[in-house]
Amino acid sequence: MNYRVDNLQYCNWSKEIFEINHEAKLDAVHATICYHEDFDELKTNIAQWKNYFKEFSSLIFQGFNSQDIEKAKLEKKTAIFYGLQNCSPIEDNIEYVEVLKDLGILFMQLTYNNQSLLATGCYEKRDTGITRMGREVIKEMNRVKMIIDMSHSAEFSTLEAIKFSEQPIVVSHANPLFWHEGLRNKSDNILKALNESGGMIGFSLYPHHLKGSSNCSLQSFCEMIADTTKRISIKQIGIGSDLCINHPDSIVEWMRNGTWTKTKDFGEGTADNAGFPPQPSWFEDARGFENLHKGLRDTGFSEEETHDILGNNWYNFYKKFD
Amino acid sequence: MNYRVDNLQYCNWSKEIFEINHEAKLDAVHATICYHEDFDELKTNIAQWKNYFKEFSSLIFQGFNSQDIEKAKLEKKTAIFYGLQNCSPIEDNIEYVEVLKDLGILFMQLTYNNQSLLATGCYEKRDTGITRMGREVIKEMNRVKMIIDMSHSAEFSTLEAIKFSEQPIVVSHANPLFWHEGLRNKSDNILKALNESGGMIGFSLYPHHLKGSSNCSLQSFCEMIADTTKRISIKQIGIGSDLCINHPDSIVEWMRNGTWTKTKDFGEGTADNAGFPPQPSWFEDARGFENLHKGLRDTGFSEEETHDILGNNWYNFYKKFD
Repeated sequence: MNYRVDNLQYCNWSKEIFEINHEAKLDAVHATICYHEDFDELKTNIAQWKNYFKEFSSLIFQGFNSQDIEKAKLEKKTAIFYGLQNCSPIEDNIEYVEVLKDLGILFMQLTYNNQSLLATGCYEKRDTGITRMGREVIKEMNRVKMIIDMSHSAEFSTLEAIKFSEQPIVVSHANPLFWHEGLRNKSDNILKALNESGGMIGFSLYPHHLKGSSNCSLQSFCEMIADTTKRISIKQIGIGSDLCINHPDSIVEWMRNGTWTKTKDFGEGTADNAGFPPQPSWFEDARGFENLHKGLRDTGFSEEETHDILGNNWYNFYKKFD
Repeated sequence: MNYRVDNLQYCNWSKEIFEINHEAKLDAVHATICYHEDFDELKTNIAQWKNYFKEFSSLIFQGFNSQDIEKAKLEKKTAIFYGLQNCSPIEDNIEYVEVLKDLGILFMQLTYNNQSLLATGCYEKRDTGITRMGREVIKEMNRVKMIIDMSHSAEFSTLEAIKFSEQPIVVSHANPLFWHEGLRNKSDNILKALNESGGMIGFSLYPHHLKGSSNCSLQSFCEMIADTTKRISIKQIGIGSDLCINHPDSIVEWMRNGTWTKTKDFGEGTADNAGFPPQPSWFEDARGFENLHKGLRDTGFSEEETHDILGNNWYNFYKKFD
């Protein structure tokens, strides 16, 4: 059986998006349900998701483990797995890790772009690595089987997370630095450490992470994947599209600025290019998975390898946390 | 006019404590009202203080500025100034800085012992200095005239706070490292930077900060003060006793562990010596200010210098934030 998994989306969720994902034959989506929210704010988002699951029950349901990906395949639906792009919902309370896992949170980033209580974000000038609380929280995440995601974290923090975690970790949505010099893209050292520890990287389709941005070609993207397999096993790569479709630009402004600054921060953008950049023409939404399939085959990947990259690897990784 | 100020206490507040402070002729006390609390938890503490001010109105009132120290002197009461030993009440929201100042918070530490969203605590292995959010919050604290306190922060973070702040900052309660090697005590570099920037240090009477701990002599303490005046102006030193009297040992356990760890942390203590250590015999509570007065005179300080150290310097420093 082959599974198709998009291991990161933060769309402006609606029937339209769920239908697109259905048309794209996605069996599972790791959906971001938090950027800056604390525990109380997060429960509002979770309540909203409960409504989506009720209203669009012919398209989606909440996923908790790998069996739900199998179930989604059988029922021709998409299993939605919750993830946090920041540790803000645990606030300063390690006990909330287990509570969040009980609510179905499968992924948690130890940081978004800034320093958190646990580790350093990739936008900080200096990198503490994993803090005192961070080491404790990693142990706790390991215990309750919550997956550590370092997509937005700084280099040394990421390497330390890999070192301290007893379970493999992920970079759910980023690309390799060797291909495109983006602040969020990952070094060969990180790919090497992920490879040795059984971790995963999900390739991002967000233009700021792409060589040539919105004009990046499908061929260049697929060749980057081929080059990446020289650094990390072909069994440890997947897609984490980082699709943020149908959002107004005020959302990317909020992602970058939250409530931490009074001076506007443009993150990966600039004052001249502050909004969401347009997606490449071959990946305007998840239906672009078909183009990826073709592109990967054209680049020389076998049918089996292509299926591994487009979802089976994520499915097998999820299995470890059942 | 001479003023007596204790620029840090966290006692188990009661009529008895307020009477002791009254007997000690304290015109002002900087009282810690938060270690780990978030905004909601802090408002409970503030409500409790409102009750103290009502119930013990013949002994205390809330202080907001230097005029309240003058008023306390005239009325033979103690003005209580609020301070936070952690930035947890601002959560991740820079707007809360002004809200907290409106509630009368005059001092805020950028960190307690651990990494915070703003800076690094002295117990962390590595020190980021001031984070991205930290730089923004320093600007905001400057704007609303909230005093930056780096008593529990790591070395580089403290030096950066001094550098980035347009107003002088304080180390409200710690001693110099040259006298006693404590994790919380401050280096000559920090004394120098405080000196050059107009900042203040308040000497601590907490045994873990004292040479010889609970057995530290009054003479050694006063000689340390004399030695410190070779490094920082005699106009920039005061007392921040760090008195934590009448608390059960569970409180120091909470201070150290909050809710950030499941592994017990002993902070400045050890498994064998986990509780509050006994105060030196000459400073069992604030009435020890009389002994300090005598000790400083015996060490060679003039009457005027002694009054400066025991409160006038703090009074003059508060004036800058009126």
